[in-house]
Amino acid sequence: MTRNQDQAVFEAGIKLGALYHQWVGTPISQRSAASVESAIEQAVILQPFVEEITVRLDRNLMTENIFGYSEVTGLMFEVDIVTRVGFTYCRARLAPRDGYPLMQIMECNEIPLSRH
Amino acid sequence: MTRNQDQAVFEAGIKLGALYHQWVGTPISQRSAASVESAIEQAVILQPFVEEITVRLDRNLMTENIFGYSEVTGLMFEVDIVTRVGFTYCRARLAPRDGYPLMQIMECNEIPLSRH
Amino acid sequence: MTRNQDQAVFEAGIKLGALYHQWVGTPISQRSAASVESAIEQAVILQPFVEEITVRLDRNLMTENIFGYSEVTGLMFEVDIVTRVGFTYCRARLAPRDGYPLMQIMECNEIPLSRH
Amino acid sequence: MTRNQDQAVFEAGIKLGALYHQWVGTPISQRSAASVESAIEQAVILQPFVEEITVRLDRNLMTENIFGYSEVTGLMFEVDIVTRVGFTYCRARLAPRDGYPLMQIMECNEIPLSRH
Repeated sequence: MTRNQDQAVFEAGIKLGALYHQWVGTPISQRSAASVESAIEQAVILQPFVEEITVRLDRNLMTENIFGYSEVTGLMFEVDIVTRVGFTYCRARLAPRDGYPLMQIMECNEIPLSRH
Repeated sequence: MTRNQDQAVFEAGIKLGALYHQWVGTPISQRSAASVESAIEQAVILQPFVEEITVRLDRNLMTENIFGYSEVTGLMFEVDIVTRVGFTYCRARLAPRDGYPLMQIMECNEIPLSRH
Repeated sequence: MTRNQDQAVFEAGIKLGALYHQWVGTPISQRSAASVESAIEQAVILQPFVEEITVRLDRNLMTENIFGYSEVTGLMFEVDIVTRVGFTYCRARLAPRDGYPLMQIMECNEIPLSRH
Repeated sequence: MTRNQDQAVFEAGIKLGALYHQWVGTPISQRSAASVESAIEQAVILQPFVEEITVRLDRNLMTENIFGYSEVTGLMFEVDIVTRVGFTYCRARLAPRDGYPLMQIMECNEIPLSRH
């Protein structure tokens, strides 16, 4: 196995674990959701080894409390992230499965040398 | 004293304490700072009794680590908030003083009845 | 009204808002709940103007996910805090009401001079 | 490479990223540090695929602010974690390096079949 793939996968895990615990609990509504998604994306893309990040928060789960807003919960997250170490890319995902906010490695790829 | 003023001051404290601990640690840079400021403002304004909120994060403290970004720290915050309960408004502030991120009540005012 | 009471109420709000957003999302189970309660209490009592703090997390809400644990949510908190500024004490509370984690001022008291 | 090693490394990253952002900002002092270390360990060990976790917070960095306490920062963490997926173990670490709270994979091992 490659050290690069190890680290690319590790870095994807770090970023998903980090963003989850950084942002859970943030007051949110359907109207403000886009600003939170954007702020998360801009925070994650700053970090080393991150190539791409897409964050969507499920508006359907933003049920209003008695004061008319909601809070970010783990099950709201639909996140796709691509990390790169050397020439190895890994794609990972945070999304609900069976009522749990599951983080998963989706695929890792070495870029074929012929393409460079 | 009025119950309204008590609660207006209490609510200002809640919001400042909450935003501080929600957002400290967020990866940030001078380029992404505006998106974080906006997301904080939009999160706080959702909450009950908040009339106005302004968040500025001190770019001068965003010194880059070896990977070229920084993290939100308590001393970066310059926050002004106005809460209202009934006809009582309170203004509070979070800003650095003597190396501490101090939260302070700035003023509380009953609106004179003649103005309504 | 007294400035002391204003600040005592403000400080109680700060501490409740802070602990809520610091700890929401923490992995927890019925077995580990006591360690989290203790860590929260010990973190809050360090802060200025806090005289007493009691934290209970509702075990009944710690329903296990598919991996056998839960996460701290706002509705789990039952917190009582007493702040003091000068000779004014205020008691505030965070507890569920109508499905919302409500923070409330319970009472404020000047200590009668005759008792000193 | 094995899928197990991929996932073991990924899970280690998740846990380190998560604990960092969950706990940064917590009020702390040299006297309360042990309670926070214990609460973090008990929170992390609940999560899937975690075999061992050790958390030490550097007391030397707990310099007191004007109110006599400090806050958990990223550079305080010295964390060792072991994750396991199937028969593959990975050890990872969070500790300061060059002024950055670095997360690193230390080693991964398949258990030799002869030992089972």
